[in-house]
Amino acid sequence: MSDTHDYKQIGTRPIRPDGVDKITGRANYGADYSLPGMLHGVVLRSPYAHANIKRIDLGKALALEGVYAAVSGADFPDVAAGGMGGEGGGDFKDLASNIMARDKALYHGHAVAAVAATSRELAIEALDLIEVDYEVLTPVMNLDAAMAENAPLLNDKIYTMGVNPKPEQPSNVAARMEFKRGDIDAGFADAEVIVEGEFRTPTVHQGYIEPHACLATMNQGGQATLWCSTQGHFEVRTAVSKTLDMDVCDIKVIATEIGGGFGGKTVIYQEPVAILMSKISGRPVKMVMDREEVFRASGPASATLSKIKLGAKKDGTLTAMSCWMAYEAGAFPGSSMAPGAMCIFAPYKTDNFLIEGFDVVVNKPKVAAYRAPGAPQSMYACESLMDELAYKLEMDPIDLRLKNAVEKGDQAAYGPKFNEVGLRECLIAAKEHPNYSRELTETQGRGISVGFWFNAGMQSSAEVHINENGTVMVIEGNPDIGGSRASMALMAAETLGVPYEKVRVLVGDTETAGFTNVTGGSRTTFATGMAVIQASQDIISQAKQRAAKTWEIDEDQVDWQDGHAVPMPGVNADWEPLSLAKIAAKSGRTGGPLLGRASLNARGAGPGFSVNIAEVDVDPETGKTEVVGFTAIQDAGKAIHPAYVEGQLQGGAVQGIGWALNEEYVYDDKGVMQNPGFLDYRIPVASDLPKIDTVIIEVPNKAHPYGVRGVGETPIVAPLAAVANAVRSAIGIRVGELPLSPPRLLAAMDE
Amino acid sequence: MSDTHDYKQIGTRPIRPDGVDKITGRANYGADYSLPGMLHGVVLRSPYAHANIKRIDLGKALALEGVYAAVSGADFPDVAAGGMGGEGGGDFKDLASNIMARDKALYHGHAVAAVAATSRELAIEALDLIEVDYEVLTPVMNLDAAMAENAPLLNDKIYTMGVNPKPEQPSNVAARMEFKRGDIDAGFADAEVIVEGEFRTPTVHQGYIEPHACLATMNQGGQATLWCSTQGHFEVRTAVSKTLDMDVCDIKVIATEIGGGFGGKTVIYQEPVAILMSKISGRPVKMVMDREEVFRASGPASATLSKIKLGAKKDGTLTAMSCWMAYEAGAFPGSSMAPGAMCIFAPYKTDNFLIEGFDVVVNKPKVAAYRAPGAPQSMYACESLMDELAYKLEMDPIDLRLKNAVEKGDQAAYGPKFNEVGLRECLIAAKEHPNYSRELTETQGRGISVGFWFNAGMQSSAEVHINENGTVMVIEGNPDIGGSRASMALMAAETLGVPYEKVRVLVGDTETAGFTNVTGGSRTTFATGMAVIQASQDIISQAKQRAAKTWEIDEDQVDWQDGHAVPMPGVNADWEPLSLAKIAAKSGRTGGPLLGRASLNARGAGPGFSVNIAEVDVDPETGKTEVVGFTAIQDAGKAIHPAYVEGQLQGGAVQGIGWALNEEYVYDDKGVMQNPGFLDYRIPVASDLPKIDTVIIEVPNKAHPYGVRGVGETPIVAPLAAVANAVRSAIGIRVGELPLSPPRLLAAMDE
Repeated sequence: MSDTHDYKQIGTRPIRPDGVDKITGRANYGADYSLPGMLHGVVLRSPYAHANIKRIDLGKALALEGVYAAVSGADFPDVAAGGMGGEGGGDFKDLASNIMARDKALYHGHAVAAVAATSRELAIEALDLIEVDYEVLTPVMNLDAAMAENAPLLNDKIYTMGVNPKPEQPSNVAARMEFKRGDIDAGFADAEVIVEGEFRTPTVHQGYIEPHACLATMNQGGQATLWCSTQGHFEVRTAVSKTLDMDVCDIKVIATEIGGGFGGKTVIYQEPVAILMSKISGRPVKMVMDREEVFRASGPASATLSKIKLGAKKDGTLTAMSCWMAYEAGAFPGSSMAPGAMCIFAPYKTDNFLIEGFDVVVNKPKVAAYRAPGAPQSMYACESLMDELAYKLEMDPIDLRLKNAVEKGDQAAYGPKFNEVGLRECLIAAKEHPNYSRELTETQGRGISVGFWFNAGMQSSAEVHINENGTVMVIEGNPDIGGSRASMALMAAETLGVPYEKVRVLVGDTETAGFTNVTGGSRTTFATGMAVIQASQDIISQAKQRAAKTWEIDEDQVDWQDGHAVPMPGVNADWEPLSLAKIAAKSGRTGGPLLGRASLNARGAGPGFSVNIAEVDVDPETGKTEVVGFTAIQDAGKAIHPAYVEGQLQGGAVQGIGWALNEEYVYDDKGVMQNPGFLDYRIPVASDLPKIDTVIIEVPNKAHPYGVRGVGETPIVAPLAAVANAVRSAIGIRVGELPLSPPRLLAAMDE
Repeated sequence: MSDTHDYKQIGTRPIRPDGVDKITGRANYGADYSLPGMLHGVVLRSPYAHANIKRIDLGKALALEGVYAAVSGADFPDVAAGGMGGEGGGDFKDLASNIMARDKALYHGHAVAAVAATSRELAIEALDLIEVDYEVLTPVMNLDAAMAENAPLLNDKIYTMGVNPKPEQPSNVAARMEFKRGDIDAGFADAEVIVEGEFRTPTVHQGYIEPHACLATMNQGGQATLWCSTQGHFEVRTAVSKTLDMDVCDIKVIATEIGGGFGGKTVIYQEPVAILMSKISGRPVKMVMDREEVFRASGPASATLSKIKLGAKKDGTLTAMSCWMAYEAGAFPGSSMAPGAMCIFAPYKTDNFLIEGFDVVVNKPKVAAYRAPGAPQSMYACESLMDELAYKLEMDPIDLRLKNAVEKGDQAAYGPKFNEVGLRECLIAAKEHPNYSRELTETQGRGISVGFWFNAGMQSSAEVHINENGTVMVIEGNPDIGGSRASMALMAAETLGVPYEKVRVLVGDTETAGFTNVTGGSRTTFATGMAVIQASQDIISQAKQRAAKTWEIDEDQVDWQDGHAVPMPGVNADWEPLSLAKIAAKSGRTGGPLLGRASLNARGAGPGFSVNIAEVDVDPETGKTEVVGFTAIQDAGKAIHPAYVEGQLQGGAVQGIGWALNEEYVYDDKGVMQNPGFLDYRIPVASDLPKIDTVIIEVPNKAHPYGVRGVGETPIVAPLAAVANAVRSAIGIRVGELPLSPPRLLAAMDE
């Protein structure tokens, strides 16, 4: 299914503007910036997963020649509690304590001090000279331990939120939430078939290739400049301002090129430390994590436990859905439990549901967003159990889902009514896809799953400047992760009616771009795209004014067609259309340069549904699963640049396959991660994977001028259950815990 | 006299935002940028002032290890003739030939080839390996030689423009212009007194401390980034685009901090060479002139000859004014003769005048703009002769000028009718100033002069972004030379009603700022200031909308007072005024970030008049003139930041004193400049100067919201004649040729 609008440039696949520099190695990523006199900063990290910090002495480190700054928690300002509103929730006070531990180390790898010296080697040497006295405490390493009665407490100031009356005892359960509709008991009473299951997902990492890196410099006037690899430099600015008690107007953040983020680069770790040490030393300070630090101290996705129950009629109609779900938040409150809870039943019409969710602290690094944060875990549970329901009902799993699939006008489980959505279209495309019906061998299995993500709107700004020769400069504020410069250029080109090649897109820094929220929430092409379109329309309106001035007619007698101002029909057909280039060349005489702007808080983000078909081959001897086929079908609304939409679908599939089959944090009994590197924490590489087939469905989102829905996050939601369901189909057994690693599958098959 | 508006911040003297970095040495000027793998480019310059280039062989230079690029004129694209519209006029084809000589070297120091190598030393070594065959021609070194019959021709394609019928023979006179009004013969016939004089000014340099410097890098996609010290990076972009045949959208120009320009940094020299060598080598290329190159090859101000005649009634009323004037253009056509001719009689009411002007090529570097280009030379002639007229009439020289001074409604000699101008106010302030009446010794003399400059408007853009906490970001496109960040911040602060400290001003590059003409023509505070004010008003309009939305009333029921949205009288007095900070904090909920923009081609630049009083002491033994007092009085319209206006007045006075007394290019008979360094080309230093007293007159320019006139150029116009008239008063003899150096005065006194 494809959108039928007659676009000239949207939907084409031009080369991305940042391509040449990225291919030739000239693009500068977080660690690629340097300044004269620069110092290198490194972090001393807690060797204990849970410990009180009794004393820190930086004296000997500071005395080492070549060391210009050394800091610990005491050197940072006190930060008031208050939400940061990010995807993972959380609090600036907690963020500050995560960046540099105050009185307690809450996970192995938690920053307790930092040093800046003339070389990285020297700085590391200085770390050895820092004296820290710890009082070691028992680590709490998983949901069961954390929620157990009399569990050791990470923080005795945490009283479970969302419980009435307020609890009398502190707890590791930071919050409880409940979502419900209808009468759950009546729903189950009404059911003819009931299935139940318990599903666990492990702690996994986004696996971005580029580690966290930044370069900071503060001048003697107290103004800081910060280069960092981030998904959202305006949010970095806010977070630095809060954690260092600085005015945002004294902080300039430049987003470097970014080597992957997937949600994990919406949080800051080293940035305030580098700025503080630059302030102290009067020199620029560069800080780059190594891979081990990334694993031990940056934010992974929550490990989860979901206990889920579905009731249905014999024809497949769902009558009741319930889920108890707990999400690890890591060392500080704030997991993605809430969006996980809001997504779990989103694909289905249901009158009766109940969700009870828990946000639980454990002695692991604080979780961060990871593509569609919270949804892969919860929907893995639901979609696995839907599969069991289909077995029980002896229904085709696509038919079962079609029976219950939401459509326009249905009230989503998370609240609002759906407008046009493409779930049914995706299900039908899946059913009709040749990959759904091809023959399998005896050791092979096929599974399908639905995926869902809300997609976000949020704030964006854009400016469009027309150069003297009519070429176009777009300035926006979203770091380009997946090709957004190309999609912005396409939308500006389509709107203005100029060739794509004549449009340049600049990702401005916090001083040059208008305020723009994070590249996250699958919002960039939707929301910032809308700002770019509106700023282009602002240009068109001015260009029409200029043409009217030139022709000495009223502005409303001028139309804009295909990149040209033309007189309205009946005005004067003899006038030559004026191209944007001609208008630009004369703009000095008609009132000055053409400058367009738009800002918005985008409403109407179109929810994104997907259906994935996984085909696997499980080796009965070893338990090793090979993915032999994978088909990602998704409603993009409108694919502005189809190649990059396909890339999103393929990338999400690959990350979901890794999550399903291999990835997990392995901890020892002291709470020390045993596999903090890509050799032992195994993400799928090309040789592990089949070609990922993609099908782009286009059910336009009417809230966007070109019909765009977000596409970046939905792709990671369905693969977990699709793979798990395929494995179930191959081996005939449901294994309810990820990853479906060879030893786990072998043990299950042996049983 | 002072403007009586009740401003809260305009007119105060806060610290400039760029002050800390400039004082602490952190600010980056043209030569301060470096990139990894960078090459150093140097230029081979003609050893002859006039020569045909028969052959250039770069082979041996290219063969030297460490040399990555070598170019000569043949490596540059052909450039079509066409005006660049800059202050000095000129043509892109000529600009290209000035940047790199094609078939002819037209002055000693003219670039004939360039090399880029891994070090500057190596590159200089490689220059010696370049083989050039020259056919040496006779150099033409001054106006008399160039205009002589049968003079050797610099360019046999030059036929004097502005002569009818078109001349049959080529000439060194590139153009003739005539300005006139009334009946000049009748005017002189009506005169009771006639004075005549001949005046010469030498070639002088702007004397900016920072040499021309740039860093260029081009990627494999053909996109160039250029850092350079310039007064106008958008004009640099245009000039690079024309001379290298590139699209402007493939050129990003970043204006570095600038260590003085005074008009001399409106032209490019090395920039296209660096970009071309970066393209060839695939590496960044840095090029920095040394002082000698600046003198030999960058653009000085024209040497001139003026033959002038004034007729007056006995009461001082002027009846006729005529002038024959010739300006050296240097190696290519395009001096500032035209503005010189337009300024010369601008201060005076006259019904009958005639000006005949000539633009003449000579074998010297092509001239460039120098503060009020053309005006100091011509007005030196007029104001010197006005002084002689006062002697002859036995009138006070201020009274003579007051008798004829233009005022509102008078038609300027250069065409339009004056609006409010402050010439009379300046003259009265001069007459009343204690420095005009204090006692002098026998060897001392006092002189006065009037100065004038049109001031320019031209195109400017500005954007204003409001941060989440209500602080303000202003993005504009004028390199900050004289404190314009401070004046922009003051105007934004005054308009928005927020404290100056909460406003940050960024000089955007060609990608981040909207198109903005050069920091020149004294236009920045006027035109870009107006854009900043309008962009701030755009913010106010949006802030009022947001307040209306919050209060649920109509937008026209909201007023803006003192940085706050307030309900209009009678609407609802109980509502608390909403500050910009409060509105910004809520902007996400009311429609998105606050983003203001404005662009304009500014009309109504207010002409600037000045009166200077010079007091000198001439040593009869040595002929050395010491300036013992100097008073600069000028109408600023409104002084946004009075300290920087005073700085302009003082700086102009000092440069004018240098021009009057010491500065000149000394050439030998082969056309080789003999004093290409600050030791021998002597600009005044602090120990040569008295305190320069300043008086700011404020006759508001009604075309600007805060009354601003340009102030940067007028200050250099009057000092030449003021000093010359003071010397005349001290020694009793008129010496009509600058500089009034000790040997020249001694010779005159001995005669």
